[in-house]
Amino acid sequence: MPIYRAPIDHVMFLLRDVFHWDQYAQLPGFADVPLDVVEAILQENAKLCEHVLQPLNASGDREGCQRQSDGSVTTPKGFKDAYQAYVEQGWIGLAAPTAYGGQGLPYALSSVVMEFVCSANMALSMYPGLTMGAVAALLTHASDAQKQLFVPPMIEGRWSGTMNLTEPHCGTDLGLLKTRAVPQADGSYRITGQKIFISAGEHDLTENIIHLVIARIEGAPEGTKGISLFVVPKILVAADGTLGEPNSVSCGSIEHKMGIHGNSTCVMNYDEAQGWLVGEANKGLAAMFVMMNEARLAVGVQGLSQSEVAYQNAVAYAKDRLQGRALSGAKMPERAADSIIVHPDVRRMLLDIKAINEAGRALVLWTALRVDVSHRSADAKAIQNAQDHLGLMTPIIKAVLTDYGFDNAVKAQQVFGGHGYVGEWGMEQFVRDARIAMIYEGANGIQALDLVGRKLPKDGGRAIVAFFTEVKDFITLHHTNADMKPYLEPIGIGLNHLQQATMWFMQNAMTKPDNAGAGAYDYLHLFGHVALGFMWAQMAQTALTLKEQQPEAMETKLVTARYFMERILPDTATRLARITTGATTMMALPADQF
Amino acid sequence: MPIYRAPIDHVMFLLRDVFHWDQYAQLPGFADVPLDVVEAILQENAKLCEHVLQPLNASGDREGCQRQSDGSVTTPKGFKDAYQAYVEQGWIGLAAPTAYGGQGLPYALSSVVMEFVCSANMALSMYPGLTMGAVAALLTHASDAQKQLFVPPMIEGRWSGTMNLTEPHCGTDLGLLKTRAVPQADGSYRITGQKIFISAGEHDLTENIIHLVIARIEGAPEGTKGISLFVVPKILVAADGTLGEPNSVSCGSIEHKMGIHGNSTCVMNYDEAQGWLVGEANKGLAAMFVMMNEARLAVGVQGLSQSEVAYQNAVAYAKDRLQGRALSGAKMPERAADSIIVHPDVRRMLLDIKAINEAGRALVLWTALRVDVSHRSADAKAIQNAQDHLGLMTPIIKAVLTDYGFDNAVKAQQVFGGHGYVGEWGMEQFVRDARIAMIYEGANGIQALDLVGRKLPKDGGRAIVAFFTEVKDFITLHHTNADMKPYLEPIGIGLNHLQQATMWFMQNAMTKPDNAGAGAYDYLHLFGHVALGFMWAQMAQTALTLKEQQPEAMETKLVTARYFMERILPDTATRLARITTGATTMMALPADQF
Repeated sequence: MPIYRAPIDHVMFLLRDVFHWDQYAQLPGFADVPLDVVEAILQENAKLCEHVLQPLNASGDREGCQRQSDGSVTTPKGFKDAYQAYVEQGWIGLAAPTAYGGQGLPYALSSVVMEFVCSANMALSMYPGLTMGAVAALLTHASDAQKQLFVPPMIEGRWSGTMNLTEPHCGTDLGLLKTRAVPQADGSYRITGQKIFISAGEHDLTENIIHLVIARIEGAPEGTKGISLFVVPKILVAADGTLGEPNSVSCGSIEHKMGIHGNSTCVMNYDEAQGWLVGEANKGLAAMFVMMNEARLAVGVQGLSQSEVAYQNAVAYAKDRLQGRALSGAKMPERAADSIIVHPDVRRMLLDIKAINEAGRALVLWTALRVDVSHRSADAKAIQNAQDHLGLMTPIIKAVLTDYGFDNAVKAQQVFGGHGYVGEWGMEQFVRDARIAMIYEGANGIQALDLVGRKLPKDGGRAIVAFFTEVKDFITLHHTNADMKPYLEPIGIGLNHLQQATMWFMQNAMTKPDNAGAGAYDYLHLFGHVALGFMWAQMAQTALTLKEQQPEAMETKLVTARYFMERILPDTATRLARITTGATTMMALPADQF
Repeated sequence: MPIYRAPIDHVMFLLRDVFHWDQYAQLPGFADVPLDVVEAILQENAKLCEHVLQPLNASGDREGCQRQSDGSVTTPKGFKDAYQAYVEQGWIGLAAPTAYGGQGLPYALSSVVMEFVCSANMALSMYPGLTMGAVAALLTHASDAQKQLFVPPMIEGRWSGTMNLTEPHCGTDLGLLKTRAVPQADGSYRITGQKIFISAGEHDLTENIIHLVIARIEGAPEGTKGISLFVVPKILVAADGTLGEPNSVSCGSIEHKMGIHGNSTCVMNYDEAQGWLVGEANKGLAAMFVMMNEARLAVGVQGLSQSEVAYQNAVAYAKDRLQGRALSGAKMPERAADSIIVHPDVRRMLLDIKAINEAGRALVLWTALRVDVSHRSADAKAIQNAQDHLGLMTPIIKAVLTDYGFDNAVKAQQVFGGHGYVGEWGMEQFVRDARIAMIYEGANGIQALDLVGRKLPKDGGRAIVAFFTEVKDFITLHHTNADMKPYLEPIGIGLNHLQQATMWFMQNAMTKPDNAGAGAYDYLHLFGHVALGFMWAQMAQTALTLKEQQPEAMETKLVTARYFMERILPDTATRLARITTGATTMMALPADQF
């Protein structure tokens, strides 16, 4: 059976020592949770993850969700009780406003909880996860009355939320959507259409499900300019919050997927279902993007979470499995063979994962703290900087951490040899579950286009310039420290490659947009390398200052940082080489020559 | 439903134009199959693949194999008839000696058939595939009487074969095996032990199954020096070939795997089963390696095969799916959107796959022709060269083509967005099936160690020097051809990186073997890049000479060759950088710090 232990020590190192949690105390919510309280909260969450959620991960995968003949969907055995424990402990509303029943604590804390919960049971974590995304969209765009009506029961976990965008013929290109909304005399709308790939679209965990649905109001413009957002409850809700008749929305079928079997992925049919406009008419896509940006960060965390749990299991196996002898001579001569962790090639796989996980977690927390600044600061300049950072980092965190999440799950599986391919060890589930995160909330190629096409040029490149400056300032600040040389020099080279690539786009993509499209994916990963490397440079700097107090743990950080610099970061050169070849060869073939 | 079309044109280009099939006519078996006959045979095989095997691929995956309470195993619906069609057309014995009922045709032809069959239905192809491997081992090591008894019914397909190496506690390190063989008065042995992960270990396709089993004869030395090979029929066979009593060998359970559900992967229990020694006592591992080397080439072909079928389906989807507009302006203004093949990032994924597949197929055929030379030539020098080539290329073909086979199946799946994650499009099955090929027949990390630890230093580096010379001679021969510059320059750089890496091992791995282990995997892929690039250089040279006759097809080859040179080959620089960092950082952490 797979294991999982929440990596609290690694999180505390980041919050306390690298990102200086105490410096945020002036932001609302932070003063309530000094570091000792943070640690206590995480320990509480870890208990739930390790003892309640994780033991249901494999069984939930095997059993899957079942659609009954009446259209209802049954979740796997144990999910109901586990969900109840989750909501009773208040995890859904951890960072939600107190005015709606939330606890108002930092989003950064909530993002750590997301990682733990998702490592323990990704399929189960998606039910409350979707609710949190829907709450975020309602809080930003809904009317006060809508917020009062829908948000508190969602934060309580009595109702859950969904996000309905995709239709059979459109996913990326939502301008093609066909779902129609017809205005009614009472101010509501009748929604008709079919939505597919709806995570948690129907299930038995909550008494109601609040669907957020995009549709086109009769007569609205074609394309993305005619899309509106609606709230469509599964069970209609009276003004006082009591439940009434079922709405005419139903689950037509559930998808048979590669993974996340414990989460019900539904085809949802809206047949003149009653819905209410959220925000302005024809501004639905913008509203949905609020939800999607939160969701994209959360999906990046899913990538990290699967990589982490797969890593932990691979380490345990590599220490336990005896096979062969170390190249440098037997390390366990008293046993029939050495444990396979003595082999460099096994360490290569483990360190590849470890180096990405710890930097990925840092990137998530660094960014999550800016989410808090953007929502809670009183300083307009700080808010703008934080928003710039978020815009830039969202596609990177989403795509880079999910690409690595999957690759790392595959590497961890490889450590097990044939045992990784069979179900009983649980490794192949991590691979199957991790795979979806590269696809949903905007496939990773779309994230790359978002980065290059929107985020780079936005506000005259203000966000990217700020990032370059931040990295350069760090290098300048520490360059006289000789111990920092193994970490700063590689970052300087990587940053230079990133700047060259950025310059190349400025010079070559305006006149020929295909040059941007052809290089976008490599650029995203080149950026990801530099961002992750910058995290390692910061962690190394912190580790050097703490080495006397915690020699073993900090030496491990420094070794892992060097591993990243020596073995992972150098890939920036290849990425740059690819980007600068441009689009000519890529676009040369007519379609029939593929 | 997924599609598949056997890529006969690509194969004929390689056999006819690049590798000059006609020049092999003096080798036994080749004169029987001039190119027009080869093409006719491939067309016959394509019919079987496209109309019989491929339609059972998805249903076989869904249904899987079932172990009955009596220990028998039922294959999925339709497999029996498909297998019958396969054997009746004589595909098992295509390249086997005529003395045992085979057709004696070239192995190279057989390797093409393997690719097609495996693209169509990997799980099903493994039943005859294992038989062919077992036949190869028997032909090399068994006594004449054993060959006469077992081989003809196996080539007929009435009996199948298996390979029993792995035990619960040992896979890579077979010296640890516990299965025991006790000699009997009649010259046979009683075999007792448990073997796991036995592909096609029990099934309902044939009337008998011939298990090749490694075990330790009572009193034999510990470790790999005390391993012997035995033939253990499921049903005992009289001297005249008639079937007798069941042997005491049984399938204890079948594995629940990530993929290849249509193939039964068995736990096999030997309980004083009657077996006969094959070859010399205590020389079993060497005998098994004959089977494993053939099997490793075949597994490389499996990687290629899954990449090819996944590619074909991704291309079809990319042409069909309408979503968004080309960055350079609408390409299908009469429709609601352009097909996604207009997008550079979709082309990136498709061309990444196409460039690997065509070069991978060339690498397989180039090597398969050397298999034929090694078995059929009368020229001792030619045989030695061919064997050198095989030793060097086997780990590369196995590991590089299976790593890419999986990565490419994942890329092809990504082209489908969410539709790639659900079962109905079949893409997720290609990913799950392709995954095993990176693991079995020696995990890919083991292939890397085989390359660096055994194949490089063997015979004073004769094989690697011959490869360097072959590539350099090609560059020298064509360097005055200005049209070849875009293909020769990158190969020259890649070769230089490979030579530097080789030199680095010579200087740094003797005194510290961990330096070899730490760089082995990158070296294997660096070598793979140069080998695949050399294939593209040869194909480009051929395409330039044929461009007037076949302008469109040859221009496509040239574009794809440039894509490889511009976007894939440059990775050699990163690989070299990693290798030369050595093992220090990788080996620095104590096990408890992972």
